[in-house]
Amino acid sequence: MESFEFMSPTKFILQEDADKLCGQEVKKISDVCLFVHYGDDFTYKSGLYDRIVESLESAGVKYYELSGVEPNPKVSLVRKGIEICKAKNVGCILAAGGGSVIDTAKAVGIGAKYDGDVWDFYSKKAYPIETLPVGTVMTLPATGSEGSRGSVLRNTEKGESADVLSDLLRPIFTLMNPELTLTIPKHQTVYGIVDMFSHIMERYFSCSVDVNLTDYMCEGVMKSILVNSHALMKDLSDYNARTELMWSSVIAHNDLLGAGRKQDWATHMLGAQLSAQYNTVHGAALSVLFPCWAEYVFKDNIPRFVQFAHRVFNVEVDFYQPEKTALEGIRRLREFFLSMGAPGTLGEIGIENDEKFRKMAEDACRFGNIGGLKSLDADDAEQIYKMAQ
Amino acid sequence: MESFEFMSPTKFILQEDADKLCGQEVKKISDVCLFVHYGDDFTYKSGLYDRIVESLESAGVKYYELSGVEPNPKVSLVRKGIEICKAKNVGCILAAGGGSVIDTAKAVGIGAKYDGDVWDFYSKKAYPIETLPVGTVMTLPATGSEGSRGSVLRNTEKGESADVLSDLLRPIFTLMNPELTLTIPKHQTVYGIVDMFSHIMERYFSCSVDVNLTDYMCEGVMKSILVNSHALMKDLSDYNARTELMWSSVIAHNDLLGAGRKQDWATHMLGAQLSAQYNTVHGAALSVLFPCWAEYVFKDNIPRFVQFAHRVFNVEVDFYQPEKTALEGIRRLREFFLSMGAPGTLGEIGIENDEKFRKMAEDACRFGNIGGLKSLDADDAEQIYKMAQ
Repeated sequence: MESFEFMSPTKFILQEDADKLCGQEVKKISDVCLFVHYGDDFTYKSGLYDRIVESLESAGVKYYELSGVEPNPKVSLVRKGIEICKAKNVGCILAAGGGSVIDTAKAVGIGAKYDGDVWDFYSKKAYPIETLPVGTVMTLPATGSEGSRGSVLRNTEKGESADVLSDLLRPIFTLMNPELTLTIPKHQTVYGIVDMFSHIMERYFSCSVDVNLTDYMCEGVMKSILVNSHALMKDLSDYNARTELMWSSVIAHNDLLGAGRKQDWATHMLGAQLSAQYNTVHGAALSVLFPCWAEYVFKDNIPRFVQFAHRVFNVEVDFYQPEKTALEGIRRLREFFLSMGAPGTLGEIGIENDEKFRKMAEDACRFGNIGGLKSLDADDAEQIYKMAQ
Repeated sequence: MESFEFMSPTKFILQEDADKLCGQEVKKISDVCLFVHYGDDFTYKSGLYDRIVESLESAGVKYYELSGVEPNPKVSLVRKGIEICKAKNVGCILAAGGGSVIDTAKAVGIGAKYDGDVWDFYSKKAYPIETLPVGTVMTLPATGSEGSRGSVLRNTEKGESADVLSDLLRPIFTLMNPELTLTIPKHQTVYGIVDMFSHIMERYFSCSVDVNLTDYMCEGVMKSILVNSHALMKDLSDYNARTELMWSSVIAHNDLLGAGRKQDWATHMLGAQLSAQYNTVHGAALSVLFPCWAEYVFKDNIPRFVQFAHRVFNVEVDFYQPEKTALEGIRRLREFFLSMGAPGTLGEIGIENDEKFRKMAEDACRFGNIGGLKSLDADDAEQIYKMAQ
């Protein structure tokens, strides 16, 4: 096991109507909050907007709004939120939505306590040392941002996606009402599942040894995601499966499963470039790229891929030809994604030619080689994009 | 899954020489601390005492000492610690040791912020609303107190053991240097393993349904404890196994594995009475009682005991006679404890007759029936003590 420091101070509340607690939770922190949301049909028509406003008002919290967050959220909207916070003396940020809303709120939080431009944190010119507290009402189990120490933004002027990682970015509270997830459309549900499953694989595919505690936990959470995904694909309104996946999203990415392990993250870096260049949905990028990445690197750590195949996907081990077992595990991973309707090739997500592969590969490696299990340079990255065609 | 609220704000640091960070961590909180420890041979001869004192001094922290903590720690010593805190304006408590030291420190923390007697919290006359922050240097993976929300004390005047549960009691930091655990004698190592394994079973044996995420996680952590315990029984100085068990102790009891589940805890209540009446070591009491409890209750939830047998102990399932599979799982649990040299009967821990069984049974149930999987009254409790003879 590697040395580690781990903290996850977020207070998680999972219950019916958990969203209605937002007023009282915000009030413990501040009388003035910025309410960040998508401003989309779901927010208004599901009654979420009204319930949150009512909860804030009845708790005596004054609120300002920042709406219109898009998938792959933009730094431009974050800057507007920061202006509001600075002008209106906001003391707490409430994010009601999925990962894009929460990542936006986190960026506003650190930006509001900083004199320079918030992109400085994402371009690694600055490191956050203070933040406004961020609480969340999560509506879309996927990115795990509701419990994580990260935020990912897109800078459209620069054509870049980048992240910030700091324990300061962990939400102070996260309210989970499973009912809010019952009407998530199938494609978003599937991308969420791919995303959380990938968050575990990024930690699982490690070259660290003597990590059987976290191995078993990773495998357990992946098996649970498989079981609940199968249930959900039969009935999208399965309340129990939705509830388990809501909590899985947190566990997959609050880094408990990564404590004491070197982690990989190459696939996320490769996927981020698809989002930056083509605005590809994060889960779709991962669905296409993860099996290709695995096929590209598995020979560097066959025992790990055999263990994955056997323990997660119940593949019978061929001890004479472990390579075959490893490949069968990767085949079942791809099959799992495809069986839910997630894409398997770049063509399926509208990327018809390789004109940007080189640029994406170089951008993915702009801070150095990527990948903890196998170190990849821009040539490797380009190969993986080609395999995904 | 049941509704839940879960938070685990403790900052955990696991690394070589983690104990030497105590000065800087305390200094972030206060300039004056109470240093709580056993004052035993290990504390002084291992160099732990010197390293902590040096770390505190070089960080400029003034410290007072409370030493002499015993297993099944007494409220009388806690009262002395409270006096020191009140008199000397202590702002932080540093506990260096195992569960008894940490539980003592937690009790001092809440007692120092309370005008009445600290036992009020344990007798449920009062509920803590404030505490001095407690940091820990943990030396004995077992009780999980280094990450938990509980503290257990013994009141020798009243002949009672009792606990307090509150998120206020979660340590603010926990420093884990695996090297400190390399010299733990075999019997203490074994009792620690039994304790952490039991903490998971108390959560695993639940009547809650639709909990496969936490089921898989519980099973994974139990399997990891089995693997590392076998390694350690072969070589008590196995650094990797010690390290994994150190982190397992935290995961087993910070209640992540219990989130969304009704929990049992009958065996801990029964065991606490053995400690109160006979000063039985906690792990020894659990080793004797857990298999007996399981045999007494398993018919009320055969599928759960079958799942335990199959997934944790690799018992082949007899689908025609699931009861046999359930019993085989319990047999292997007992075998696991006995194989490490832990006791299997009350006789082995020096309890030769049944004269106190009735009193212990009634005391265990003094706040009402015990047990979440099967509700037990004093008659049931007495039966289980008899089975353990």
